[in-house]
Amino acid sequence: MAEPPLPRCRRPLEVFKRFSGNPILKPLRGSPWESRRVFNCAAFYERGRIHRVYWAQGEDNISRLGYASTSDGFHIEERLKHPIFQPSSSRFEMYGCEDPRLTKLNGKLYMTYTAYGRTLRWRKTSKLRLAQIGLTWISLKDFLEKRWRWGPRIYPLPYVDDKNCVLFPEKFDGKYVMYHRIPPHIWISYSASLEDWSKSFHRIVMQPQEEWEWVKIGSGAPPIKLGEGWLLIYHGVDRYFNYRLGLALISKDDPENIVKLRVPVLEPKEPYEKTRNGQGIVFTCGAVPLDGEIIVYYGGADRVVGAAKADISELLSLFEKKKLVSPAKQF
Amino acid sequence: MAEPPLPRCRRPLEVFKRFSGNPILKPLRGSPWESRRVFNCAAFYERGRIHRVYWAQGEDNISRLGYASTSDGFHIEERLKHPIFQPSSSRFEMYGCEDPRLTKLNGKLYMTYTAYGRTLRWRKTSKLRLAQIGLTWISLKDFLEKRWRWGPRIYPLPYVDDKNCVLFPEKFDGKYVMYHRIPPHIWISYSASLEDWSKSFHRIVMQPQEEWEWVKIGSGAPPIKLGEGWLLIYHGVDRYFNYRLGLALISKDDPENIVKLRVPVLEPKEPYEKTRNGQGIVFTCGAVPLDGEIIVYYGGADRVVGAAKADISELLSLFEKKKLVSPAKQF
Repeated sequence: MAEPPLPRCRRPLEVFKRFSGNPILKPLRGSPWESRRVFNCAAFYERGRIHRVYWAQGEDNISRLGYASTSDGFHIEERLKHPIFQPSSSRFEMYGCEDPRLTKLNGKLYMTYTAYGRTLRWRKTSKLRLAQIGLTWISLKDFLEKRWRWGPRIYPLPYVDDKNCVLFPEKFDGKYVMYHRIPPHIWISYSASLEDWSKSFHRIVMQPQEEWEWVKIGSGAPPIKLGEGWLLIYHGVDRYFNYRLGLALISKDDPENIVKLRVPVLEPKEPYEKTRNGQGIVFTCGAVPLDGEIIVYYGGADRVVGAAKADISELLSLFEKKKLVSPAKQF
Repeated sequence: MAEPPLPRCRRPLEVFKRFSGNPILKPLRGSPWESRRVFNCAAFYERGRIHRVYWAQGEDNISRLGYASTSDGFHIEERLKHPIFQPSSSRFEMYGCEDPRLTKLNGKLYMTYTAYGRTLRWRKTSKLRLAQIGLTWISLKDFLEKRWRWGPRIYPLPYVDDKNCVLFPEKFDGKYVMYHRIPPHIWISYSASLEDWSKSFHRIVMQPQEEWEWVKIGSGAPPIKLGEGWLLIYHGVDRYFNYRLGLALISKDDPENIVKLRVPVLEPKEPYEKTRNGQGIVFTCGAVPLDGEIIVYYGGADRVVGAAKADISELLSLFEKKKLVSPAKQF
């Protein structure tokens, strides 16, 4: 296998327009659970509203999930006072639940998230915390009526250093499919059951290739079905740990047949997208197609939520430019 | 999934007898490449001799592989002056080649090893070194005639934190099969081709369960075919980072059907199996069946090579004791 190429880090494609009122969601001073950070959020459209589940942290630095909704996609009209999902006390997620992603499937709402728990290592010199993928669900009805009766919590790959799990809203050849990220690649998993992933199998489907993806890549929003295939918004991390968003197009019938754009589509540049030490972070867990556009919600610098929108046909036309497109995996 | 059990760390089964002349291989003072450590080694039997390929380090701390052989399994009769395999300068293994394992297959000798290279991370605060699995081969004839014409070097899972790769000497359902270890589990991989693992798929088949396996487990010697199935000698790492050896029995026709002993079969206790700070390490990369016995070669405290032998029928009889046996995976 050849060494990965080291192209210059090109300017991003300016296809997403930020909402002028960004950030659209910020920490709430004085709140016990969301006073410090309100960021990466899941989103879906149902009955005239865009529902959002976001990652929040308060003074105790424990990660919980909150809820807000909007009808135009940008102006928040409702925000709940209490978290709607909290970490259990098990060793799998005692330090918090992060990065929620929501997928409508079989009349339920499946939530994949990062369960931040304890490793099996106990020696003091070794890393004690571990991010694993978590999966749970709630009936759509319960969710819309705000009865937070979540199902059991499943850990498809317990104790594996894993994140950025997104579930497809449809089956392929009778199997449920998800993407997840064992560093530095995006892997695919197939399972006959959503509740039991012990017989699932796994394969690498996307690898870091470009300068802006150098350290690792990970899925962002769950894949969005369009006429031409599935659109995946994912993130790449460069060698200075700046996070950008990129686009991949997945074949309609084959979730391993993926092409991607060589250039990012959203790059941190606004003040709320930069940390105090200058690191830039835009990171998405949710995007919603609406009236020919896609609204992407993203965490800005792990502090706030921003939104940006793009024309779907414009996004898809990028994949017709040969120079811009590359296979998702070259080994 | 329930939390893993935390049984008391029971005494090992005393089935392996150490060779009285241990250690059988030690560093060579004054050698430029093997003056510091001579340890984990692969082994196979061919034409009246047991051939061994061992991991060595000299003053430069670069890991290279050396060769020695013996006819009785214990007394070294031949040891080459020069390394037989050296790391390439590529980023995949610039820091060395470690933990060789050898499998005879299709008239060739396949060597899996740990390629110690550079991560994709360049930021100074992040880990720069990464262990990945490497695979190469040599014709059996070339090996026996000491013409070190190795084939290309393949990295089945490039940039994935992975080790302890062992290749089965037979195909299953037309596919090549290997075990490898993405922490903390043992995974299986299937591939139609030995040279191209890009379409391989992966699944967890063994998980840490016992106190002596707490931090992680990994395959030791490549599986050994016996009438009753395949015998796998593997290692477990406890929470104080002591390494012990355990036994698993794999179904003849299904490499995912595995049972294992709950208790280790070799535990560090001799002075040459302990480091200066008291950590105990026995770690195997090779074992050879010979005249109804199995000789296991193991690295002692990452410094020397030891050998121990056990009666095959005695090892197999352990799997008939129900209290000793557990499934390899419980989720």
